[in-house]
Amino acid sequence: MLRADAASAVLGMRIERDEPGIAVVSMTVRADMLNGFAITHGGLVFALADTAFAVACNEDDKVTVAAGADITFLRSTGEGDVLTATARRRIRSGRTGLYDVTVTDAAGEIVAEFRGRSVTTDRPAPA
Amino acid sequence: MLRADAASAVLGMRIERDEPGIAVVSMTVRADMLNGFAITHGGLVFALADTAFAVACNEDDKVTVAAGADITFLRSTGEGDVLTATARRRIRSGRTGLYDVTVTDAAGEIVAEFRGRSVTTDRPAPA
Amino acid sequence: MLRADAASAVLGMRIERDEPGIAVVSMTVRADMLNGFAITHGGLVFALADTAFAVACNEDDKVTVAAGADITFLRSTGEGDVLTATARRRIRSGRTGLYDVTVTDAAGEIVAEFRGRSVTTDRPAPA
Amino acid sequence: MLRADAASAVLGMRIERDEPGIAVVSMTVRADMLNGFAITHGGLVFALADTAFAVACNEDDKVTVAAGADITFLRSTGEGDVLTATARRRIRSGRTGLYDVTVTDAAGEIVAEFRGRSVTTDRPAPA
Repeated sequence: MLRADAASAVLGMRIERDEPGIAVVSMTVRADMLNGFAITHGGLVFALADTAFAVACNEDDKVTVAAGADITFLRSTGEGDVLTATARRRIRSGRTGLYDVTVTDAAGEIVAEFRGRSVTTDRPAPA
Repeated sequence: MLRADAASAVLGMRIERDEPGIAVVSMTVRADMLNGFAITHGGLVFALADTAFAVACNEDDKVTVAAGADITFLRSTGEGDVLTATARRRIRSGRTGLYDVTVTDAAGEIVAEFRGRSVTTDRPAPA
Repeated sequence: MLRADAASAVLGMRIERDEPGIAVVSMTVRADMLNGFAITHGGLVFALADTAFAVACNEDDKVTVAAGADITFLRSTGEGDVLTATARRRIRSGRTGLYDVTVTDAAGEIVAEFRGRSVTTDRPAPA
Repeated sequence: MLRADAASAVLGMRIERDEPGIAVVSMTVRADMLNGFAITHGGLVFALADTAFAVACNEDDKVTVAAGADITFLRSTGEGDVLTATARRRIRSGRTGLYDVTVTDAAGEIVAEFRGRSVTTDRPAPA
């Protein structure tokens, strides 16, 4: 799925791990990912977590999409920092799922905590 | 502030309105903003809303940052769609603020609803 | 619906207004609603908002239930305070709805902001 | 702290475990805890999770309060069901904390997932 994900590719995201219910995706912060305070734009931290969530929640032969998510920002980062998002399924019940994603920096410090809410559709997953 | 926001600039965001507690920011979805399902990457919808939030919540001479946010995705969009994020202060109480951001498409249909939680710091805002 | 709501009745909730997409419910804080810090238990502030949400989102002849909610606590209250929760539909799109509930005290100060996520089922609403 | 918590006592909550960063609290659903659909009122499920969160996050000699929380409801319950809320610290960073609370029924099925956001104050904890 991520092979065809142009947005994640342009942002330089790398899939480190992809198993049912678990995904790890990393990204190196570039100068063009900073906001007006010279720190990593929160939207791109979210985008990294969201991509890890998407990889983790597409576990079977049906397309699963994000219904929503909550993020808490805990630590700011900057250019050159390597961010790693680790997504884990918390629960899947019927069509609904919850996945927790922790974003850390290279020192292992927590940058953000994200919880995604997924909905599984009837559409077959692309090959 | 957004003048120095490299990430928002690279994503082609345009500030349409910037008043205390209110901001409108728009973005045209490009091919490189799509995810593996050929729809706009949720992280970039979030990034648009987050930028509008940042503009709206930096209302005075202190830096205000995002402590967190929740987003609900309601409608998918694709290449060429023009998304508009309208942020409005709901409440500011002491250092804490809540801002609601609605993202719509060109037809006025709601694409996402976002609620941002802000914290005002002691740092002076950059000139 | 609320006529049969034992929990809301025991907590002394009063429906002040009930129109499609809008509801106002009030509650007087009693000594047995305080937590260990002698302030209103956050769970009961949530319960008040949740009841207003339930009234507002059950707009038609199908049962609508809460899928989830987010609350931000802004001001503590205590025994004797009269809390009023005003729920308004933000959007309803297919089976999904978002309702914003503001809880205020007698002086009109905001005690909490709540956003509920609803799902409409196929079950007919009780008469 | 919970010894003085009138609201939790009236709701019949029992503290099963109380260690720094971890708490387990249980509650048996009574007839007066049901809503108009004859299922446990979501506000009381939240209240149970919120109490477990409060016990878990008051880890040291300063008062810690809830800044907010998000809950997802996954399974409805009814009269006689025994609900157990298990709260675990996810992260504490400066004054801010995140605690995840899982509410289960007697069969171990997940009833709700809750994530609380805490703020530690300067006030000394009551003895």
